[in-house]
Amino acid sequence: MNLPILNWLPNYRREHLTGDLGASIIVSLLLIPQGLAYAQLAGLPAITGLYASIVPVMIYALLGSSMTQSVGPMAITSAMTAAALAPLASSGSSNYIALASGLTLLSGLFLFAFGAFKLGKLTRILSIPVVQGFSAGTALLIAISQTGALLSTNWRGDNLLNWMLAIPQALSNLSLIPVLFGLAGMALLWLAGKPSITPLQKLRFSLSTAQLISRTLPILILILGGLILKLGFLNVASLRTIGGLPSAGSSFITPQLGMSALEQLLLPALLIGLAGFLQSITIAQTVASERNEKVDTNQEFVALGGSNIAAAFVGGMPVSGGFSRTAVNASSGARTPMAGVMTAGWMLLGVIFFADAISLLPLPLLAATIILATARMLNPQSFWIAWRIDPRDGAAWLLTFVAVLLIGPINGIAVGVGVSLLLFILRSSKPHIAVVGRVAGTEHFRNALHFKVEMPANILAIRIDESLYFGNCAQVIEQCQKHLLSHTQAKHLILILSAVNSIDVSAIAALREFRQHLALTGITLHLAEVKGPVHETLLHSTFISELAGPIFLSPHAAVVALCDEKEEDYCI
Amino acid sequence: MNLPILNWLPNYRREHLTGDLGASIIVSLLLIPQGLAYAQLAGLPAITGLYASIVPVMIYALLGSSMTQSVGPMAITSAMTAAALAPLASSGSSNYIALASGLTLLSGLFLFAFGAFKLGKLTRILSIPVVQGFSAGTALLIAISQTGALLSTNWRGDNLLNWMLAIPQALSNLSLIPVLFGLAGMALLWLAGKPSITPLQKLRFSLSTAQLISRTLPILILILGGLILKLGFLNVASLRTIGGLPSAGSSFITPQLGMSALEQLLLPALLIGLAGFLQSITIAQTVASERNEKVDTNQEFVALGGSNIAAAFVGGMPVSGGFSRTAVNASSGARTPMAGVMTAGWMLLGVIFFADAISLLPLPLLAATIILATARMLNPQSFWIAWRIDPRDGAAWLLTFVAVLLIGPINGIAVGVGVSLLLFILRSSKPHIAVVGRVAGTEHFRNALHFKVEMPANILAIRIDESLYFGNCAQVIEQCQKHLLSHTQAKHLILILSAVNSIDVSAIAALREFRQHLALTGITLHLAEVKGPVHETLLHSTFISELAGPIFLSPHAAVVALCDEKEEDYCI
Repeated sequence: MNLPILNWLPNYRREHLTGDLGASIIVSLLLIPQGLAYAQLAGLPAITGLYASIVPVMIYALLGSSMTQSVGPMAITSAMTAAALAPLASSGSSNYIALASGLTLLSGLFLFAFGAFKLGKLTRILSIPVVQGFSAGTALLIAISQTGALLSTNWRGDNLLNWMLAIPQALSNLSLIPVLFGLAGMALLWLAGKPSITPLQKLRFSLSTAQLISRTLPILILILGGLILKLGFLNVASLRTIGGLPSAGSSFITPQLGMSALEQLLLPALLIGLAGFLQSITIAQTVASERNEKVDTNQEFVALGGSNIAAAFVGGMPVSGGFSRTAVNASSGARTPMAGVMTAGWMLLGVIFFADAISLLPLPLLAATIILATARMLNPQSFWIAWRIDPRDGAAWLLTFVAVLLIGPINGIAVGVGVSLLLFILRSSKPHIAVVGRVAGTEHFRNALHFKVEMPANILAIRIDESLYFGNCAQVIEQCQKHLLSHTQAKHLILILSAVNSIDVSAIAALREFRQHLALTGITLHLAEVKGPVHETLLHSTFISELAGPIFLSPHAAVVALCDEKEEDYCI
Repeated sequence: MNLPILNWLPNYRREHLTGDLGASIIVSLLLIPQGLAYAQLAGLPAITGLYASIVPVMIYALLGSSMTQSVGPMAITSAMTAAALAPLASSGSSNYIALASGLTLLSGLFLFAFGAFKLGKLTRILSIPVVQGFSAGTALLIAISQTGALLSTNWRGDNLLNWMLAIPQALSNLSLIPVLFGLAGMALLWLAGKPSITPLQKLRFSLSTAQLISRTLPILILILGGLILKLGFLNVASLRTIGGLPSAGSSFITPQLGMSALEQLLLPALLIGLAGFLQSITIAQTVASERNEKVDTNQEFVALGGSNIAAAFVGGMPVSGGFSRTAVNASSGARTPMAGVMTAGWMLLGVIFFADAISLLPLPLLAATIILATARMLNPQSFWIAWRIDPRDGAAWLLTFVAVLLIGPINGIAVGVGVSLLLFILRSSKPHIAVVGRVAGTEHFRNALHFKVEMPANILAIRIDESLYFGNCAQVIEQCQKHLLSHTQAKHLILILSAVNSIDVSAIAALREFRQHLALTGITLHLAEVKGPVHETLLHSTFISELAGPIFLSPHAAVVALCDEKEEDYCI
């Protein structure tokens, strides 16, 4: 096994330290509210979000090939965890936690195995618009799932329809003070973000100090909100806080993986792992490419797999690299995974010394944190970009987006895989084939559309210009049949496979059926110019032995042979 | 809308009648036990299986383009129905029936819409080995789900693991008489099938009479079994019969499609529709091709969609064309869909006049009917055929098979879609690219491996020989980077897109990132010989404007332009 730490740690220098230390502080300020909020989103005790930012981060530092990846809880995987577990246990129960842990373990084992078996190619099964549509849909789903917590009412909705149907009841249950508290908190948190930087610079802070302040403000706003509730300024029962944190002992969890759980969590675990990995690798590669560094896809699978396996036993919440967090880590000066180790240290200190403070944080403000984080993921312009370039890509974006909103993130990403496949097939659905003939006086056969060619009327020769597989074989045969309609005297159909590099089981089955069908109408099928690998594949089936004649080395040989047979007058 | 009935009914002739009538009788003999058994399998009242063979069959006769398709309940869709509804309601309850009806309606609407929007291409998203693995896995799953009913014990298992874990308890609950009854019944039903034909011929029956007898025997065995129980020869309480049928009034069902049901049934409905359709179209095309007839894929979508919409309101059980049933229909002489209309008539007579007799049929014998029917679907040699031709196709078969056994038919077919996609990507994962150079003294650029070519050292020209999309763009870029490693002096990379017919959003994004990355290392990316459609697609993105130079008409023009710039000494 590869240990990338052996590459960077021995070369660790003093100037790395300052960058890593600074980045670790800023990322921790970001991670604390995010971790708490995402744990809530996943239906787990809030403290879980902090645990998930300690041990897994250290494992990633050992195994990860990205210098700037920041591992921890993420919005999308948290929402998918909740969706996967909702039918199995009641949110927050000890059974739920054990199942979450099992889910995370499975997901980690999948990722680890993909890396160990070098299946990095797996990441290519989704097209970019599908991933974007999935992210946007999940972001919106997450945001609407938080409206209830934001406004301190029992507004629930695990999909868009449920949520909309619950609007009347939710509105009737609103009370003024909690709504104002939530909305004001969200407004403050929004102002504390990017909008605060220009005013802070006007106050003569340098850009980097302004950014530091802007990144510290959200946690201060959360603490302020907690103090307001704690000190009883707002005496409203419906305004709730995170509440008591479990003792340290309960942070170690035994994953539950009974047979029935295993069966029901297998597919969600795979999809959660895949979704988390896709987000991680995308941001890691983007940052690495900007810094002229390299990220190894298979090694990242191993590293995120290891991080999740560790996460399963401590907190039980799935982790992955996060978009904004990794970007912030890189831009704050992180040079090596040591920044991650230091982040883990800060989080541990936070858990040990500030547990009481954390328990006072108000739930509506955590909801606001989530909504603001997901708003950045919504990215609707990615739809327009895709649509303008190719409406099929745009349609794929939209279909995945709508699927996620209607049937949740787990089924939604399954639909996305299907949509990607459809895109593939639509693209390859017009394979190029050409009717060819002999260029007069030569043995060369060329496209009859572009060259003046000659051919006996009893023979139709068609060159297939693409490899044959299940996605295009039906279409190829359909096109051949159309050409046969305009060559009514043809008694022989020669398929020239000079450009066919591979053929699969489905295509062979389709050819066999085509041959039988042609035989019924008195037409004989022949093959010519079959490449080595295709010939070998055909030899493993019975197709060649079913052919009426030999495989011809060239179309010329085929025409000479087939022409001599009976109808001399047609011969070239 | 197309009404194929307008093509065949006006030309209906007397000689069609005899064929259709004979086939309708034989198919009915097959349909009665199958329908009753599959309804049990789907968790619905047994009589539902007969309802599903009446109205939907008549709708298919109106709309279907296949002359021999026999529509009705099918094992796979029944098992998928049970899997989809098991978490939502208790089998056989009125809520369950209403949900089944909703599921069937949704599934019918999907199919109808696919046909109306001419999405027949959808059927190409699964490769043949994946479909075979899915069928084999589902067949085995169905067979094991029936072992409990066969042996009159509470042996349950909705997947292979559950079933195996239940073995000890199941064995301890066996009692001798019911086990012997079930096994003897199954042996008789097996003997009544193909094995009976040769002995019957030896008794001087003609082949067709022998076949007719062989097809009548199963229903006689079921009736015999019912009589044995009814007359009290075996007084064992655990030996159960179908029991009382509901009154005619209750056959009309209002589908239940509440919001939450809609959400949970959307994906299963799509997959059930797809699975049923795939089986239908495969057998319909096979038979049509043998008879030199045509089946219109889109019209079949419409016809099966319409049949399922009707089925939703009468019985609520999904229908599709069945393999063995359609084959029997064709071989028994069916000439037109009139055979289906007659079959529907026989089934209606059966429901009206023999309801009491049907209620006496023993459940173990229905289970045996199902097990024998699925044994024919298991078809393990299809795995070996695929494996021998291409181990990747074999692996796809096996993976889908195992997935179905472990996580059920619904999730299993979703895995199958993913596996098909992976196969696609594995196939296209080594796109062909070639480093090219100028053939000395010409303006032609050819593969540097095969021709003696010359090239300035500051320029690397690579021809990409395949269309670019999400599945292969990463690989293409990786290969380009490898070539750059062995061309250390290159300052310009020219990508020649003369063979690229299309490009998608993902590939454009990858090229954009590649350009940025190259710029960091001091290499400029250029494009040459871009085809019209690809150029148009690129114009809709910002990629062209980000390029440092123009798109060159030819590699020659590019080399001349880039060479003149600075390093005169390298120029050709």
